[in-house]
Amino acid sequence: MSDVTPTATEDSNHRAQTAVAALYAGDRASQALGIEVLDVAPGRARVAMTVRSDMVNGHGICHGGMVFSLADSAFAFACNSRGEAMVAAGASIEFLAPTRIDEHLIASATETARTLRHGIYDVVVATAAGEVRAHFRGRCSRLNTAAPR
Amino acid sequence: MSDVTPTATEDSNHRAQTAVAALYAGDRASQALGIEVLDVAPGRARVAMTVRSDMVNGHGICHGGMVFSLADSAFAFACNSRGEAMVAAGASIEFLAPTRIDEHLIASATETARTLRHGIYDVVVATAAGEVRAHFRGRCSRLNTAAPR
Amino acid sequence: MSDVTPTATEDSNHRAQTAVAALYAGDRASQALGIEVLDVAPGRARVAMTVRSDMVNGHGICHGGMVFSLADSAFAFACNSRGEAMVAAGASIEFLAPTRIDEHLIASATETARTLRHGIYDVVVATAAGEVRAHFRGRCSRLNTAAPR
Amino acid sequence: MSDVTPTATEDSNHRAQTAVAALYAGDRASQALGIEVLDVAPGRARVAMTVRSDMVNGHGICHGGMVFSLADSAFAFACNSRGEAMVAAGASIEFLAPTRIDEHLIASATETARTLRHGIYDVVVATAAGEVRAHFRGRCSRLNTAAPR
Repeated sequence: MSDVTPTATEDSNHRAQTAVAALYAGDRASQALGIEVLDVAPGRARVAMTVRSDMVNGHGICHGGMVFSLADSAFAFACNSRGEAMVAAGASIEFLAPTRIDEHLIASATETARTLRHGIYDVVVATAAGEVRAHFRGRCSRLNTAAPR
Repeated sequence: MSDVTPTATEDSNHRAQTAVAALYAGDRASQALGIEVLDVAPGRARVAMTVRSDMVNGHGICHGGMVFSLADSAFAFACNSRGEAMVAAGASIEFLAPTRIDEHLIASATETARTLRHGIYDVVVATAAGEVRAHFRGRCSRLNTAAPR
Repeated sequence: MSDVTPTATEDSNHRAQTAVAALYAGDRASQALGIEVLDVAPGRARVAMTVRSDMVNGHGICHGGMVFSLADSAFAFACNSRGEAMVAAGASIEFLAPTRIDEHLIASATETARTLRHGIYDVVVATAAGEVRAHFRGRCSRLNTAAPR
Repeated sequence: MSDVTPTATEDSNHRAQTAVAALYAGDRASQALGIEVLDVAPGRARVAMTVRSDMVNGHGICHGGMVFSLADSAFAFACNSRGEAMVAAGASIEFLAPTRIDEHLIASATETARTLRHGIYDVVVATAAGEVRAHFRGRCSRLNTAAPR
Protein backbone atom coordinates (compact mmCIF):
# COMPACT_ATOMS: atom_id res chain seq x y z
CA MET A 1 0.00 0.00 0.00
CA SER A 2 1.36 3.42 -0.93
CA ASP A 3 0.62 6.70 0.84
CA VAL A 4 -1.84 7.52 -1.90
CA THR A 5 -4.32 4.74 -1.20
CA PRO A 6 -5.41 5.81 2.29
CA THR A 7 -5.89 9.36 1.07
CA ALA A 8 -7.94 8.22 -1.90
CA THR A 9 -10.04 6.12 0.45
CA GLU A 10 -10.49 9.04 2.81
CA ASP A 11 -11.54 11.18 -0.12
CA SER A 12 -14.11 8.71 -1.38
CA ASN A 13 -15.38 8.13 2.17
CA HIS A 14 -15.77 11.86 2.60
CA ARG A 15 -17.59 12.13 -0.73
CA ALA A 16 -19.92 9.28 0.27
CA GLN A 17 -20.68 10.91 3.61
CA THR A 18 -21.37 14.26 1.96
CA ALA A 19 -23.67 12.69 -0.65
CA VAL A 20 -25.64 10.79 1.98
CA ALA A 21 -25.86 13.79 4.32
CA ALA A 22 -27.41 15.83 1.48
CA LEU A 23 -29.83 13.03 0.69
CA TYR A 24 -30.78 12.52 4.33
CA ALA A 25 -31.42 16.24 4.79
CA GLY A 26 -34.31 16.03 2.34
CA ASP A 27 -35.47 12.56 3.35
CA ARG A 28 -38.44 13.49 5.48
CA ALA A 29 -39.72 9.91 5.54
CA SER A 30 -36.54 8.56 7.14
CA GLN A 31 -36.57 11.47 9.58
CA ALA A 32 -40.21 10.86 10.51
CA LEU A 33 -39.43 7.20 11.24
CA GLY A 34 -36.55 8.22 13.50
CA ILE A 35 -34.00 6.58 11.23
CA GLU A 36 -30.44 7.72 11.91
CA VAL A 37 -27.35 7.23 9.79
CA LEU A 38 -24.62 5.37 11.70
CA ASP A 39 -21.89 5.25 9.06
CA VAL A 40 -21.35 5.47 5.33
CA ALA A 41 -18.62 4.46 2.90
CA PRO A 42 -18.60 4.02 -0.89
CA GLY A 43 -21.21 1.35 -1.60
CA ARG A 44 -22.07 0.82 2.07
CA ALA A 45 -24.37 2.33 4.70
CA ARG A 46 -25.54 1.46 8.20
CA VAL A 47 -28.69 3.01 9.65
CA ALA A 48 -30.69 2.46 12.84
CA MET A 49 -34.29 2.77 14.03
CA THR A 50 -36.07 1.99 17.28
CA VAL A 51 -39.50 0.37 16.85
CA ARG A 52 -42.11 2.74 18.27
CA SER A 53 -45.60 1.91 19.51
CA ASP A 54 -47.05 3.60 16.42
CA MET A 55 -45.15 1.16 14.17
CA VAL A 56 -47.00 -2.04 15.09
CA ASN A 57 -49.52 -3.87 12.94
CA GLY A 58 -52.75 -5.63 13.91
CA HIS A 59 -50.84 -8.60 15.34
CA GLY A 60 -48.98 -6.30 17.76
CA ILE A 61 -45.61 -6.80 16.06
CA CYS A 62 -43.68 -4.31 13.96
CA HIS A 63 -45.41 -3.63 10.62
CA GLY A 64 -43.47 -5.20 7.75
CA GLY A 65 -43.52 -1.87 5.95
CA MET A 66 -41.52 -0.26 8.76
CA VAL A 67 -38.82 -2.95 8.61
CA PHE A 68 -38.77 -2.60 4.82
CA SER A 69 -38.52 1.20 5.10
CA LEU A 70 -35.46 0.93 7.34
CA ALA A 71 -33.78 -1.48 4.90
CA ASP A 72 -34.82 0.65 1.93
CA SER A 73 -33.22 3.75 3.47
CA ALA A 74 -29.97 1.85 4.08
CA PHE A 75 -30.12 0.68 0.45
CA ALA A 76 -30.81 4.21 -0.85
CA PHE A 77 -27.89 5.67 1.10
CA ALA A 78 -25.52 2.90 -0.05
CA CYS A 79 -26.46 3.12 -3.72
CA ASN A 80 -26.29 6.94 -3.75
CA SER A 81 -22.95 7.03 -1.93
CA ARG A 82 -20.93 7.09 -5.16
CA GLY A 83 -22.28 10.40 -6.39
CA GLU A 84 -24.64 9.46 -9.24
CA ALA A 85 -28.33 9.70 -8.27
CA MET A 86 -29.90 6.22 -8.19
CA VAL A 87 -33.49 5.24 -7.48
CA ALA A 88 -34.93 1.88 -6.44
CA ALA A 89 -36.29 -0.21 -9.30
CA GLY A 90 -37.44 -3.02 -7.05
CA ALA A 91 -36.67 -5.03 -3.96
CA SER A 92 -37.43 -8.25 -2.15
CA ILE A 93 -37.47 -8.93 1.59
CA GLU A 94 -37.55 -12.08 3.70
CA PHE A 95 -38.87 -11.73 7.23
CA LEU A 96 -37.05 -14.20 9.50
CA ALA A 97 -38.56 -13.31 12.85
CA PRO A 98 -41.04 -10.78 14.24
CA THR A 99 -39.76 -7.48 15.59
CA ARG A 100 -41.27 -5.92 18.72
CA ILE A 101 -41.82 -2.48 20.23
CA ASP A 102 -38.66 -0.81 21.62
CA GLU A 103 -36.33 -3.09 19.69
CA HIS A 104 -33.39 -1.17 18.27
CA LEU A 105 -32.83 -2.30 14.67
CA ILE A 106 -29.70 -1.82 12.62
CA ALA A 107 -29.75 -2.19 8.84
CA SER A 108 -26.43 -2.79 7.09
CA ALA A 109 -26.31 -2.35 3.31
CA THR A 110 -23.50 -3.68 1.13
CA GLU A 111 -22.94 -3.54 -2.62
CA THR A 112 -23.40 -6.87 -4.37
CA ALA A 113 -23.17 -5.60 -7.97
CA ARG A 114 -22.70 -2.21 -9.60
CA THR A 115 -22.49 -1.02 -13.18
CA LEU A 116 -22.70 2.51 -14.51
CA ARG A 117 -26.49 2.47 -14.59
CA HIS A 118 -27.62 -0.35 -12.31
CA GLY A 119 -26.84 -1.90 -8.96
CA ILE A 120 -27.80 -4.67 -6.55
CA TYR A 121 -27.50 -4.15 -2.80
CA ASP A 122 -28.04 -6.57 0.07
CA VAL A 123 -29.26 -5.35 3.43
CA VAL A 124 -29.34 -7.28 6.72
CA VAL A 125 -31.69 -6.01 9.41
CA ALA A 126 -30.72 -7.16 12.89
CA THR A 127 -31.21 -6.21 16.52
CA ALA A 128 -28.42 -4.58 18.51
CA ALA A 129 -27.69 -8.08 19.88
CA GLY A 130 -27.18 -9.37 16.34
CA GLU A 131 -30.39 -11.35 15.92
CA VAL A 132 -31.32 -11.15 12.26
CA ARG A 133 -34.88 -10.02 11.60
CA ALA A 134 -34.88 -9.64 7.80
CA HIS A 135 -32.83 -9.98 4.62
CA PHE A 136 -33.48 -7.41 1.88
CA ARG A 137 -32.16 -7.26 -1.70
CA GLY A 138 -32.65 -4.03 -3.68
CA ARG A 139 -32.12 -3.18 -7.34
CA CYS A 140 -31.48 0.41 -8.45
CA SER A 141 -31.18 2.36 -11.69
CA ARG A 142 -29.76 5.75 -12.62
CA LEU A 143 -32.32 8.49 -11.94
CA ASN A 144 -31.87 10.24 -15.28
CA THR A 145 -32.09 7.27 -17.63
CA ALA A 146 -34.49 7.68 -20.52
CA ALA A 147 -36.66 4.77 -19.49
CA PRO A 148 -38.84 4.46 -16.41
CA ARG A 149 -37.28 2.53 -13.64
CA MET B 1 -77.61 -18.99 -8.72
CA SER B 2 -79.75 -20.25 -5.85
CA ASP B 3 -80.89 -18.23 -2.86
CA VAL B 4 -78.25 -19.96 -0.78
CA THR B 5 -75.19 -18.69 -2.63
CA PRO B 6 -75.68 -14.96 -2.11
CA THR B 7 -76.33 -15.54 1.59
CA ALA B 8 -73.18 -17.63 1.94
CA THR B 9 -71.25 -14.93 0.13
CA GLU B 10 -72.74 -12.24 2.34
CA ASP B 11 -71.75 -14.27 5.38
CA SER B 12 -68.17 -14.73 4.27
CA ASN B 13 -67.95 -11.09 3.22
CA HIS B 14 -69.22 -10.08 6.65
CA ARG B 15 -66.71 -12.38 8.34
CA ALA B 16 -63.89 -10.91 6.22
CA GLN B 17 -64.92 -7.35 7.09
CA THR B 18 -65.12 -8.17 10.80
CA ALA B 19 -61.69 -9.85 10.78
CA VAL B 20 -60.10 -6.90 8.99
CA ALA B 21 -61.82 -4.31 11.18
CA ALA B 22 -60.39 -6.03 14.27
CA LEU B 23 -56.94 -6.15 12.70
CA TYR B 24 -57.09 -2.53 11.58
CA ALA B 25 -58.16 -1.38 15.06
CA GLY B 26 -54.79 -2.51 16.43
CA ASP B 27 -52.75 -1.58 13.35
CA ARG B 28 -51.24 1.64 14.60
CA ALA B 29 -48.74 1.78 11.73
CA SER B 30 -51.46 1.80 9.07
CA GLN B 31 -53.37 4.40 11.08
CA ALA B 32 -50.29 6.61 11.43
CA LEU B 33 -49.75 6.50 7.66
CA GLY B 34 -53.36 7.56 7.08
CA ILE B 35 -54.18 4.27 5.37
CA GLU B 36 -57.91 3.63 5.11
CA VAL B 37 -59.70 0.42 4.22
CA LEU B 38 -61.94 0.83 1.16
CA ASP B 39 -63.41 -2.65 0.87
CA VAL B 40 -62.76 -6.23 1.89
CA ALA B 41 -63.95 -9.65 0.74
CA PRO B 42 -62.58 -13.15 1.34
CA GLY B 43 -59.05 -13.11 -0.05
CA ARG B 44 -59.28 -9.51 -1.25
CA ALA B 45 -58.74 -6.01 0.15
CA ARG B 46 -58.49 -2.49 -1.19
CA VAL B 47 -56.84 0.28 0.84
CA ALA B 48 -55.93 3.90 0.13
CA MET B 49 -53.34 6.44 1.27
CA THR B 50 -52.51 10.01 0.26
CA VAL B 51 -48.79 10.76 -0.03
CA ARG B 52 -47.91 13.38 2.60
CA SER B 53 -44.97 15.77 2.61
CA ASP B 54 -43.41 13.74 5.44
CA MET B 55 -43.36 10.65 3.20
CA VAL B 56 -40.80 11.80 0.63
CA ASN B 57 -37.21 10.60 0.32
CA GLY B 58 -34.06 12.53 -0.51
CA HIS B 59 -34.98 12.72 -4.20
CA GLY B 60 -38.27 14.49 -3.33
CA ILE B 61 -40.42 11.55 -4.40
CA CYS B 62 -42.41 9.19 -2.20
CA HIS B 63 -40.11 6.91 -0.15
CA GLY B 64 -40.27 3.34 -1.44
CA GLY B 65 -40.96 2.14 2.08
CA MET B 66 -44.21 4.13 2.17
CA VAL B 67 -45.44 2.58 -1.09
CA PHE B 68 -44.39 -0.86 0.22
CA SER B 69 -46.20 -0.21 3.52
CA LEU B 70 -49.45 0.57 1.72
CA ALA B 71 -49.18 -2.59 -0.38
CA ASP B 72 -48.17 -4.61 2.68
CA SER B 73 -51.26 -3.46 4.57
CA ALA B 74 -53.53 -4.43 1.66
CA PHE B 75 -51.75 -7.81 1.60
CA ALA B 76 -52.14 -8.28 5.38
CA PHE B 77 -55.85 -7.48 5.26
CA ALA B 78 -56.45 -9.80 2.30
CA CYS B 79 -54.56 -12.74 3.77
CA ASN B 80 -56.19 -12.36 7.19
CA SER B 81 -59.69 -12.01 5.74
CA ARG B 82 -60.42 -15.73 6.00
CA GLY B 83 -60.16 -15.90 9.78
CA GLU B 84 -56.85 -17.66 10.42
CA ALA B 85 -54.08 -15.30 11.54
CA MET B 86 -51.38 -15.06 8.87
CA VAL B 87 -48.11 -13.12 8.91
CA ALA B 88 -45.89 -12.02 6.03
CA ALA B 89 -42.98 -14.36 5.33
CA GLY B 90 -41.60 -12.24 2.52
CA ALA B 91 -42.46 -9.97 -0.36
CA SER B 92 -41.12 -8.43 -3.54
CA ILE B 93 -42.00 -5.10 -5.11
CA GLU B 94 -41.36 -3.54 -8.53
CA PHE B 95 -41.48 0.24 -8.71
CA LEU B 96 -42.82 1.27 -12.13
CA ALA B 97 -42.94 5.04 -11.75
CA PRO B 98 -42.25 7.61 -9.02
CA THR B 99 -45.08 8.74 -6.75
CA ARG B 100 -45.38 12.37 -5.68
CA ILE B 101 -46.74 14.38 -2.76
CA ASP B 102 -50.54 14.62 -2.62
CA GLU B 103 -51.06 11.65 -4.92
CA HIS B 104 -53.90 9.45 -3.74
CA LEU B 105 -52.80 5.81 -4.00
CA ILE B 106 -55.03 2.77 -4.02
CA ALA B 107 -53.63 -0.70 -3.33
CA SER B 108 -55.69 -3.68 -4.47
CA ALA B 109 -54.77 -7.11 -3.11
CA THR B 110 -55.97 -10.37 -4.63
CA GLU B 111 -55.32 -13.98 -3.70
CA THR B 112 -53.04 -15.81 -6.13
CA ALA B 113 -52.61 -19.01 -4.10
CA ARG B 114 -53.82 -20.25 -0.74
CA THR B 115 -53.36 -23.42 1.24
CA LEU B 116 -54.14 -24.09 4.89
CA ARG B 117 -50.84 -22.67 6.09
CA HIS B 118 -49.44 -20.54 3.25
CA GLY B 119 -50.57 -18.01 0.69
CA ILE B 120 -49.42 -15.78 -2.16
CA TYR B 121 -51.08 -12.43 -2.77
CA ASP B 122 -50.58 -9.91 -5.55
CA VAL B 123 -51.08 -6.21 -4.94
CA VAL B 124 -51.30 -3.44 -7.54
CA VAL B 125 -50.64 0.11 -6.35
CA ALA B 126 -52.14 2.76 -8.62
CA THR B 127 -53.24 6.36 -8.56
CA ALA B 128 -56.92 7.28 -8.48
CA ALA B 129 -56.60 7.80 -12.27
CA GLY B 130 -55.43 4.21 -12.67
CA GLU B 131 -51.73 4.83 -13.36
CA VAL B 132 -49.83 1.89 -11.91
CA ARG B 133 -47.00 2.84 -9.56
CA ALA B 134 -45.96 -0.55 -8.23
CA HIS B 135 -46.57 -4.30 -8.34
CA PHE B 136 -46.14 -6.23 -5.08
CA ARG B 137 -46.20 -9.98 -4.41
CA GLY B 138 -46.42 -11.18 -0.81
CA ARG B 139 -46.05 -14.62 0.77
CA CYS B 140 -47.65 -15.41 4.13
CA SER B 141 -47.63 -18.23 6.68
CA ARG B 142 -49.90 -19.19 9.57
CA LEU B 143 -49.00 -17.18 12.66
CA ASN B 144 -48.80 -20.20 14.97
CA THR B 145 -46.52 -22.39 12.88
CA ALA B 146 -43.33 -23.46 14.58
CA ALA B 147 -41.14 -21.26 12.43
CA PRO B 148 -41.82 -18.28 10.22
CA ARG B 149 -40.96 -18.76 6.60
CA MET C 1 -67.02 -3.43 -32.09
CA SER C 2 -66.44 -2.36 -35.67
CA ASP C 3 -65.18 -4.59 -38.48
CA VAL C 4 -61.77 -3.01 -38.06
CA THR C 5 -61.03 -4.26 -34.56
CA PRO C 6 -61.07 -7.99 -35.28
CA THR C 7 -58.82 -7.44 -38.29
CA ALA C 8 -56.37 -5.40 -36.24
CA THR C 9 -56.42 -8.12 -33.61
CA GLU C 10 -55.85 -10.78 -36.22
CA ASP C 11 -52.93 -8.78 -37.58
CA SER C 12 -51.30 -8.37 -34.19
CA ASN C 13 -51.95 -12.02 -33.35
CA HIS C 14 -50.32 -13.01 -36.60
CA ARG C 15 -47.35 -10.76 -35.90
CA ALA C 16 -47.00 -12.25 -32.41
CA GLN C 17 -47.09 -15.80 -33.77
CA THR C 18 -44.51 -14.99 -36.43
CA ALA C 19 -42.19 -13.35 -33.90
CA VAL C 20 -42.43 -16.29 -31.51
CA ALA C 21 -42.01 -18.88 -34.28
CA ALA C 22 -38.77 -17.17 -35.31
CA LEU C 23 -37.57 -17.07 -31.72
CA TYR C 24 -38.52 -20.69 -31.09
CA ALA C 25 -36.69 -21.82 -34.23
CA GLY C 26 -33.40 -20.72 -32.68
CA ASP C 27 -34.28 -21.67 -29.11
CA ARG C 28 -32.35 -24.92 -28.85
CA ALA C 29 -32.76 -25.04 -25.07
CA SER C 30 -36.56 -25.06 -25.26
CA GLN C 31 -36.40 -27.65 -28.03
CA ALA C 32 -34.05 -29.87 -26.02
CA LEU C 33 -36.46 -29.76 -23.07
CA GLY C 34 -39.34 -30.80 -25.31
CA ILE C 35 -41.14 -27.50 -24.76
CA GLU C 36 -43.87 -26.84 -27.31
CA VAL C 37 -45.71 -23.60 -28.01
CA LEU C 38 -49.48 -24.00 -27.58
CA ASP C 39 -50.67 -20.51 -28.44
CA VAL C 40 -49.46 -16.94 -28.65
CA ALA C 41 -51.08 -13.52 -28.72
CA PRO C 42 -49.69 -10.02 -28.11
CA GLY C 43 -48.34 -10.09 -24.56
CA ARG C 44 -49.36 -13.70 -23.94
CA ALA C 45 -47.99 -17.18 -24.51
CA ARG C 46 -48.82 -20.71 -23.44
CA VAL C 47 -46.24 -23.49 -23.61
CA ALA C 48 -46.16 -27.11 -22.47
CA MET C 49 -43.59 -29.67 -21.35
CA THR C 50 -43.78 -33.24 -20.07
CA VAL C 51 -41.47 -34.02 -17.16
CA ARG C 52 -38.97 -36.65 -18.29
CA SER C 53 -36.98 -39.05 -16.16
CA ASP C 54 -33.83 -37.06 -16.93
CA MET C 55 -35.41 -33.96 -15.36
CA VAL C 56 -35.58 -35.12 -11.73
CA ASN C 57 -33.36 -33.93 -8.89
CA GLY C 58 -31.84 -35.89 -6.01
CA HIS C 59 -35.19 -36.05 -4.19
CA GLY C 60 -36.79 -37.80 -7.19
CA ILE C 61 -39.03 -34.84 -8.05
CA CYS C 62 -38.74 -32.48 -10.99
CA HIS C 63 -35.65 -30.23 -10.68
CA GLY C 64 -36.69 -26.65 -9.92
CA GLY C 65 -34.57 -25.44 -12.81
CA MET C 66 -36.70 -27.42 -15.27
CA VAL C 67 -39.93 -25.86 -13.94
CA PHE C 68 -38.24 -22.45 -14.05
CA SER C 69 -37.05 -23.07 -17.63
CA LEU C 70 -40.57 -23.84 -18.79
CA ALA C 71 -41.91 -20.67 -17.15
CA ASP C 72 -38.98 -18.66 -18.48
CA SER C 73 -39.69 -19.79 -22.05
CA ALA C 74 -43.36 -18.79 -21.72
CA PHE C 75 -42.18 -15.43 -20.38
CA ALA C 76 -39.66 -14.97 -23.22
CA PHE C 77 -42.27 -15.74 -25.88
CA ALA C 78 -44.85 -13.41 -24.28
CA CYS C 79 -42.46 -10.48 -23.87
CA ASN C 80 -41.06 -10.85 -27.40
CA SER C 81 -44.50 -11.19 -28.99
CA ARG C 82 -44.79 -7.46 -29.69
CA GLY C 83 -41.83 -7.29 -32.08
CA GLU C 84 -39.10 -5.54 -30.05
CA ALA C 85 -36.42 -7.94 -28.79
CA MET C 86 -36.53 -8.20 -25.00
CA VAL C 87 -34.29 -10.16 -22.63
CA ALA C 88 -34.91 -11.26 -19.06
CA ALA C 89 -33.45 -8.95 -16.43
CA GLY C 90 -34.58 -11.07 -13.51
CA ALA C 91 -37.30 -13.33 -12.20
CA SER C 92 -38.73 -14.88 -9.07
CA ILE C 93 -40.50 -18.20 -8.66
CA GLU C 94 -42.58 -19.75 -5.89
CA PHE C 95 -42.82 -23.54 -5.87
CA LEU C 96 -46.24 -24.55 -4.52
CA ALA C 97 -46.07 -28.29 -4.89
CA PRO C 98 -43.62 -30.88 -6.24
CA THR C 99 -43.89 -32.00 -9.86
CA ARG C 100 -43.32 -35.63 -10.82
CA ILE C 101 -42.11 -37.66 -13.80
CA ASP C 102 -44.60 -37.88 -16.69
CA GLU C 103 -46.63 -34.89 -15.49
CA HIS C 104 -47.67 -32.67 -18.38
CA LEU C 105 -47.09 -29.05 -17.38
CA ILE C 106 -48.60 -25.99 -18.99
CA ALA C 107 -47.11 -22.53 -18.42
CA SER C 108 -49.34 -19.53 -19.15
CA ALA C 109 -47.70 -16.11 -19.38
CA THR C 110 -49.61 -12.83 -19.22
CA GLU C 111 -48.45 -9.24 -19.37
CA THR C 112 -48.68 -7.42 -16.04
CA ALA C 113 -46.89 -4.22 -17.07
CA ARG C 114 -45.23 -2.97 -20.24
CA THR C 115 -43.44 0.21 -21.21
CA LEU C 116 -41.28 0.88 -24.24
CA ARG C 117 -38.18 -0.57 -22.62
CA HIS C 118 -39.34 -2.71 -19.70
CA GLY C 119 -42.00 -5.24 -18.84
CA ILE C 120 -43.32 -7.47 -16.07
CA TYR C 121 -44.89 -10.83 -16.90
CA ASP C 122 -46.63 -13.34 -14.64
CA VAL C 123 -46.53 -17.03 -15.43
CA VAL C 124 -48.60 -19.79 -13.84
CA VAL C 125 -47.30 -23.35 -14.17
CA ALA C 126 -50.01 -25.96 -13.74
CA THR C 127 -50.74 -29.58 -14.60
CA ALA C 128 -53.19 -30.47 -17.35
CA ALA C 129 -55.74 -30.97 -14.55
CA GLY C 130 -55.23 -27.39 -13.42
CA GLU C 131 -53.22 -28.04 -10.24
CA VAL C 132 -50.85 -25.12 -9.82
CA ARG C 133 -47.22 -26.12 -9.34
CA ALA C 134 -45.49 -22.70 -9.45
CA HIS C 135 -45.98 -18.96 -9.82
CA PHE C 136 -43.28 -17.05 -11.71
CA ARG C 137 -42.81 -13.29 -12.20
CA GLY C 138 -40.31 -12.10 -14.80
CA ARG C 139 -38.86 -8.67 -15.58
CA CYS C 140 -37.48 -7.86 -19.03
CA SER C 141 -35.59 -5.05 -20.75
CA ARG C 142 -35.01 -4.06 -24.35
CA LEU C 143 -32.12 -6.07 -25.81
CA ASN C 144 -30.29 -3.04 -27.19
CA THR C 145 -30.28 -0.87 -24.06
CA ALA C 146 -26.85 0.18 -22.87
CA ALA C 147 -26.92 -2.06 -19.82
CA PRO C 148 -29.03 -5.05 -18.82
CA ARG C 149 -31.14 -4.54 -15.75
CA MET D 1 -8.01 -23.48 18.03
CA SER D 2 -7.85 -26.77 19.90
CA ASP D 3 -7.16 -30.14 18.35
CA VAL D 4 -10.85 -30.91 18.57
CA THR D 5 -12.08 -28.19 16.23
CA PRO D 6 -10.30 -29.33 13.06
CA THR D 7 -11.55 -32.85 13.64
CA ALA D 8 -15.12 -31.66 14.12
CA THR D 9 -14.80 -29.58 10.97
CA GLU D 10 -13.41 -32.51 9.04
CA ASP D 11 -16.28 -34.64 10.27
CA SER D 12 -18.92 -32.14 9.22
CA ASN D 13 -17.18 -31.58 5.88
CA HIS D 14 -17.16 -35.33 5.32
CA ARG D 15 -20.84 -35.58 6.25
CA ALA D 16 -21.66 -32.71 3.86
CA GLN D 17 -19.75 -34.36 1.02
CA THR D 18 -21.45 -37.70 1.63
CA ALA D 19 -24.91 -36.10 1.72
CA VAL D 20 -24.30 -34.19 -1.52
CA ALA D 21 -22.75 -37.21 -3.27
CA ALA D 22 -25.89 -39.23 -2.49
CA LEU D 23 -28.12 -36.40 -3.73
CA TYR D 24 -26.07 -35.91 -6.89
CA ALA D 25 -26.19 -39.64 -7.68
CA GLY D 26 -29.96 -39.38 -8.14
CA ASP D 27 -29.98 -35.91 -9.67
CA ARG D 28 -30.44 -36.84 -13.29
CA ALA D 29 -31.23 -33.25 -14.28
CA SER D 30 -27.88 -31.93 -13.02
CA GLN D 31 -26.11 -34.86 -14.70
CA ALA D 32 -27.91 -34.20 -18.02
CA LEU D 33 -26.83 -30.55 -17.91
CA GLY D 34 -23.22 -31.59 -17.35
CA ILE D 35 -23.14 -29.97 -13.92
CA GLU D 36 -20.24 -31.16 -11.78
CA VAL D 37 -19.69 -30.66 -8.06
CA LEU D 38 -16.44 -28.82 -7.33
CA ASP D 39 -16.51 -28.70 -3.55
CA VAL D 40 -18.89 -28.92 -0.62
CA ALA D 41 -18.81 -27.91 3.03
CA PRO D 42 -21.58 -27.47 5.61
CA GLY D 43 -23.87 -24.78 4.18
CA ARG D 44 -21.75 -24.26 1.07
CA ALA D 45 -21.38 -25.76 -2.39
CA ARG D 46 -19.60 -24.89 -5.63
CA VAL D 47 -20.68 -26.43 -8.94
CA ALA D 48 -19.68 -25.87 -12.58
CA MET D 49 -21.26 -26.18 -16.01
CA THR D 50 -20.09 -25.39 -19.54
CA VAL D 51 -22.70 -23.73 -21.75
CA ARG D 52 -23.47 -26.09 -24.65
CA SER D 53 -24.92 -25.22 -28.03
CA ASP D 54 -28.18 -26.90 -27.02
CA MET D 55 -28.53 -24.46 -24.09
CA VAL D 56 -29.09 -21.25 -26.05
CA ASN D 57 -32.38 -19.40 -26.43
CA GLY D 58 -33.84 -17.61 -29.46
CA HIS D 59 -31.46 -14.66 -29.01
CA GLY D 60 -28.44 -16.98 -29.30
CA ILE D 61 -27.40 -16.51 -25.67
CA CYS D 62 -27.63 -19.01 -22.83
CA HIS D 63 -31.29 -19.66 -21.85
CA GLY D 64 -32.06 -18.12 -18.46
CA GLY D 65 -33.43 -21.44 -17.29
CA MET D 66 -30.03 -23.07 -17.76
CA VAL D 67 -28.28 -20.40 -15.65
CA PHE D 68 -31.05 -20.74 -13.05
CA SER D 69 -30.68 -24.54 -13.07
CA LEU D 70 -26.97 -24.30 -12.33
CA ALA D 71 -27.59 -21.89 -9.44
CA ASP D 72 -30.50 -24.01 -8.20
CA SER D 73 -28.29 -27.11 -8.08
CA ALA D 74 -25.63 -25.24 -6.08
CA PHE D 75 -28.40 -24.06 -3.74
CA ALA D 76 -29.83 -27.58 -3.38
CA PHE D 77 -26.44 -29.07 -2.55
CA ALA D 78 -25.65 -26.31 -0.04
CA CYS D 79 -28.99 -26.51 1.78
CA ASN D 80 -28.92 -30.33 1.92
CA SER D 81 -25.32 -30.44 3.12
CA ARG D 82 -26.33 -30.50 6.80
CA GLY D 83 -28.17 -33.81 6.62
CA GLU D 84 -31.85 -32.84 6.84
CA ALA D 85 -33.62 -33.05 3.47
CA MET D 86 -34.64 -29.57 2.26
CA VAL D 87 -36.53 -28.57 -0.87
CA ALA D 88 -36.73 -25.21 -2.61
CA ALA D 89 -39.74 -23.10 -1.65
CA GLY D 90 -38.86 -20.27 -3.99
CA ALA D 91 -36.05 -18.28 -5.53
CA SER D 92 -35.19 -15.06 -7.31
CA ILE D 93 -32.49 -14.41 -9.87
CA GLU D 94 -30.96 -11.26 -11.35
CA PHE D 95 -29.27 -11.61 -14.73
CA LEU D 96 -26.36 -9.17 -14.92
CA ALA D 97 -24.92 -10.03 -18.31
CA PRO D 98 -25.59 -12.57 -21.06
CA THR D 99 -23.77 -15.88 -21.07
CA ARG D 100 -22.50 -17.44 -24.31
CA ILE D 101 -21.80 -20.86 -25.74
CA ASP D 102 -18.64 -22.56 -24.38
CA GLU D 103 -18.46 -20.29 -21.35
CA HIS D 104 -17.52 -22.24 -18.23
CA LEU D 105 -19.76 -21.10 -15.38
CA ILE D 106 -19.14 -21.61 -11.67
CA ALA D 107 -21.96 -21.23 -9.16
CA SER D 108 -20.99 -20.64 -5.52
CA ALA D 109 -23.69 -21.08 -2.88
CA THR D 110 -23.38 -19.76 0.68
CA GLU D 111 -25.75 -19.88 3.64
CA THR D 112 -27.32 -16.55 4.49
CA ALA D 113 -29.81 -17.80 7.10
CA ARG D 114 -30.72 -21.18 8.54
CA THR D 115 -33.22 -22.35 11.11
CA LEU D 116 -34.39 -25.87 11.85
CA ARG D 117 -37.00 -25.82 9.13
CA HIS D 118 -36.08 -22.99 6.76
CA GLY D 119 -33.08 -21.47 5.05
CA ILE D 120 -31.92 -18.70 2.72
CA TYR D 121 -28.97 -19.25 0.40
CA ASP D 122 -27.21 -16.83 -1.94
CA VAL D 123 -25.58 -18.05 -5.11
CA VAL D 124 -23.22 -16.13 -7.39
CA VAL D 125 -22.84 -17.40 -10.95
CA ALA D 126 -19.60 -16.25 -12.60
CA THR D 127 -17.28 -17.21 -15.42
CA ALA D 128 -13.94 -18.86 -14.74
CA ALA D 129 -12.43 -15.37 -15.12
CA GLY D 130 -14.64 -14.08 -12.32
CA GLU D 131 -17.14 -12.07 -14.39
CA VAL D 132 -20.46 -12.25 -12.59
CA ARG D 133 -23.36 -13.37 -14.76
CA ALA D 134 -26.15 -13.72 -12.18
CA HIS D 135 -27.10 -13.41 -8.52
CA PHE D 136 -29.57 -15.96 -7.15
CA ARG D 137 -31.31 -16.11 -3.75
CA GLY D 138 -33.13 -19.30 -2.78
CA ARG D 139 -35.45 -20.16 0.10
CA CYS D 140 -35.86 -23.75 1.30
CA SER D 141 -38.04 -25.69 3.71
CA ARG D 142 -37.78 -29.08 5.38
CA LEU D 143 -39.02 -31.80 3.05
CA ASN D 144 -41.15 -33.57 5.65
CA THR D 145 -43.01 -30.61 7.13
CA ALA D 146 -46.77 -31.03 7.39
CA ALA D 147 -47.47 -28.07 5.14
CA PRO D 148 -46.79 -27.72 1.45
CA ARG D 149 -43.71 -25.77 0.64
